Amino acid sequence: MESSKNFDIRRGRNLTMLVDFYEFTMGNGYFENNMGNKIAYFDMFFRRIPDGGGYCIMAGVQQIIEYLSNLNFSEEDIEYLRGKEQFSEEFLNYLRNFKFCCDVWAVPEGEPIFPGEPLVTVRGPAIQAQFVETMILLTVNHQTLIATKANRICKAAGPRPIMEFGSRRAQGSDAAIYGARAAVIGGCSSTACTIAEQMFGIPAVGTMAHSWIQLFPSEYESFKAWAKVYPDNCVLLIDTYNVLKSGLPNAIKVFKEILIPNGHKPRGIRIDSGDITYLTKKCRKILDEAGLQEVQIVISNSLDEFIIRDVLSQGACIDSFGVGERLITAKSEPVFGGVYKLSAVEDENGTIIPKIKISENEEKITNPGFKKIYRIYDKMGNKAIADLITLNDEKIDINKPLEIFDPLFTWKKKKIKSYYIKDLMVKIFDKGHLVYESPDVSHIKKLVKEETSKFWPETLRLENPHHYYVDLSKKLWDLKQHLLGKYSDTYDE
Amino acid sequence: MESSKNFDIRRGRNLTMLVDFYEFTMGNGYFENNMGNKIAYFDMFFRRIPDGGGYCIMAGVQQIIEYLSNLNFSEEDIEYLRGKEQFSEEFLNYLRNFKFCCDVWAVPEGEPIFPGEPLVTVRGPAIQAQFVETMILLTVNHQTLIATKANRICKAAGPRPIMEFGSRRAQGSDAAIYGARAAVIGGCSSTACTIAEQMFGIPAVGTMAHSWIQLFPSEYESFKAWAKVYPDNCVLLIDTYNVLKSGLPNAIKVFKEILIPNGHKPRGIRIDSGDITYLTKKCRKILDEAGLQEVQIVISNSLDEFIIRDVLSQGACIDSFGVGERLITAKSEPVFGGVYKLSAVEDENGTIIPKIKISENEEKITNPGFKKIYRIYDKMGNKAIADLITLNDEKIDINKPLEIFDPLFTWKKKKIKSYYIKDLMVKIFDKGHLVYESPDVSHIKKLVKEETSKFWPETLRLENPHHYYVDLSKKLWDLKQHLLGKYSDTYDE
Repeated sequence: MESSKNFDIRRGRNLTMLVDFYEFTMGNGYFENNMGNKIAYFDMFFRRIPDGGGYCIMAGVQQIIEYLSNLNFSEEDIEYLRGKEQFSEEFLNYLRNFKFCCDVWAVPEGEPIFPGEPLVTVRGPAIQAQFVETMILLTVNHQTLIATKANRICKAAGPRPIMEFGSRRAQGSDAAIYGARAAVIGGCSSTACTIAEQMFGIPAVGTMAHSWIQLFPSEYESFKAWAKVYPDNCVLLIDTYNVLKSGLPNAIKVFKEILIPNGHKPRGIRIDSGDITYLTKKCRKILDEAGLQEVQIVISNSLDEFIIRDVLSQGACIDSFGVGERLITAKSEPVFGGVYKLSAVEDENGTIIPKIKISENEEKITNPGFKKIYRIYDKMGNKAIADLITLNDEKIDINKPLEIFDPLFTWKKKKIKSYYIKDLMVKIFDKGHLVYESPDVSHIKKLVKEETSKFWPETLRLENPHHYYVDLSKKLWDLKQHLLGKYSDTYDE
Repeated sequence: MESSKNFDIRRGRNLTMLVDFYEFTMGNGYFENNMGNKIAYFDMFFRRIPDGGGYCIMAGVQQIIEYLSNLNFSEEDIEYLRGKEQFSEEFLNYLRNFKFCCDVWAVPEGEPIFPGEPLVTVRGPAIQAQFVETMILLTVNHQTLIATKANRICKAAGPRPIMEFGSRRAQGSDAAIYGARAAVIGGCSSTACTIAEQMFGIPAVGTMAHSWIQLFPSEYESFKAWAKVYPDNCVLLIDTYNVLKSGLPNAIKVFKEILIPNGHKPRGIRIDSGDITYLTKKCRKILDEAGLQEVQIVISNSLDEFIIRDVLSQGACIDSFGVGERLITAKSEPVFGGVYKLSAVEDENGTIIPKIKISENEEKITNPGFKKIYRIYDKMGNKAIADLITLNDEKIDINKPLEIFDPLFTWKKKKIKSYYIKDLMVKIFDKGHLVYESPDVSHIKKLVKEETSKFWPETLRLENPHHYYVDLSKKLWDLKQHLLGKYSDTYDE
């Protein structure tokens, strides 16, 4: 049995074999060609922000750590691979004695991230650095997608809390569990997913379904029964039969007959169907007239950032939202297209030889070499001005003005005088040893709030945001042009 | 440790706590109101076919079985719940000694299914039948979504095999693992997801990534090295630099220099970018002229049923497809909206009392009572004519003509004379005991093929299909009208 502190016998799973089969065929191929131990650098990055947004929120690092910490092959795995009749015994033996020994850097969870930036960099023996591709992509792609979507939804809701309600429509168990975590990182206040509270300490909440009401002889009796069991946490679902003719009058009756006379404060009502703006305005008015100004109105019905923005702009009276399927699947754009590309190798002397992947499509050309990211902040306004991708050994002297330029339209230059910088990537594994402690979810959530506040509102818009600059250092830009030049020579028309 | 035969220490997980928190608050509420043991019936069903299609493919039953077989609460779970300070000690004690004792019926995996049909029915103590809602929905919603999408994609590809390539863009690990399984149920020939072969015996396949080529001094050398390691399974990825100027010529060179002289048959080339129709036509012509008619062309680049249909109609020369993100996330419509609703209770004498959930929206009104589904086939043409939802105790005498009618437009009637029927739901748990053996994936896949062939092509169209009839028996229709009448009396304007 694996012995990582994060590996729980009821909850954990060894996911070593959750890997694209070609990682094995390539691994065996590297091995057979004596290239297995050649040092390679891979970057994970993405090319496009979902939903036409202006930024994404990094997530998934904690699960990468769990995956990499538990990387090993059982005898059953070796036996299975032997059965494929494609792999040498030497390679299988290598896997049997597999010991992860790569260096890994990542952007911490919760940081705003942008296209083209290395989010995860892996340096190590080709056979290993290649192998971890599938799970690094899967993990960061999924969780960044949901954290980003959640942040958009929370932004639309303003100060009103968002509860994550999507487990039943999630794409599998992990989508529910890690999706709930990512949703809270992105800004949700809580989740309906119970196991997520056990695993990550994020609050799990919930009240009743329509079936509760249907199981009683009447709606009124069902509300009364609920109020007696949960007098201090009484949120009643009022749309089983008819919100205005039945649900709301019954709720008010129960609040006034059962709760208030016994010294309890009614919490709220929930509406899960119908015309949100119309119903919530009506309900608010009726509740206020009944002296129940503190009773909150909760809405939950196929919501997303656009519907929330719309109903609030129409004057809907809502105190909090439950958001389900459109958050947990990122329905409007359910794929985060992160890729994992070779960026360099080392020769036998340890010299880094940058590699580039070219493409007809300019945006698909990779940034070569071993890199890092600096985020540059304006000292006066405390706002992020640009991100600068540099080669790893480049230092920035913040006492000197910094000139940055657009990597596509190089005449677009900017000289920055008064600024401070942050090195965006942190080392999480050193030669296979974990050297980073993942913050807990509440800290990550706080980071999201702090860091997004350092971006201009124009960048954070839901639609048509200003483009945030991600520039290349002069040295990296020159290297890229040099490598591109070599290829265009080769394939001249 | 749990002792189900399906619970594997490396792969299994106990998902008892993957549950919407309101299942606990309701459970405790039922308990406190002495209703925990009241017998209730719940149906899972869906209302709308994704992507405007004409049918769906049922999937997820095997994982429901694993979930229900492993349902139990650990001391840690009880401790956690106690900490929420909402639950009585009696209720926690009930959970500590929890023993699943419901009856469960389901439509077998692989069957074509239609809106309004109960896909899963659970009968048992309210507290239990309610509790399993979250995971039954999650499992069937996810896997049916992917099996259906896969079936559409395979239909578009005709006889050409589809490989499932989506793990890296899946929404979490289970989306990759069970998504691969569902994809193969839907018709895919194989998957890139290795663990899915170990778990379900579905073939895992894969060759090389661009990084393999980049790690060698040249594309030619990388192909040569590959051909030496995998002479009988040599599929070369030819779009790293330039398909027509570099990749294809190098591949042909290696096929002719290394493989053929040594008695090996070149397998194929793969293209992962660019204009599919143009490139595959060109490649086919060049390969054929080089005498390599048997070299296959594999395509893999953000494909779905519509792109596949388009490129094939444009004359693209493709032998098989790798389909990734748009299959594994069902990108065009990533939510399958199954719901789980109370349909009946039993009184103290065991008499079934049907329940209905009404709605302003006619389609959202549930079908009351304990039900079953008959699929009716035309004896002559061996084609499915309609599905008929009846109360569970209704029998059909197939020696008599059968009159069916549209539940919305009741004057639309049809008399069927020569027919045979199939009882669509099977019992999978009897008082908590598993009484069903799930077929393996290859059998389920075969069932999909056989059963979909019994539907008219008009129903199976990708777009604008004919509507397949799902009718209610006279008895069920009468019951529904009766219950609706009762509510409309209550809420008269």
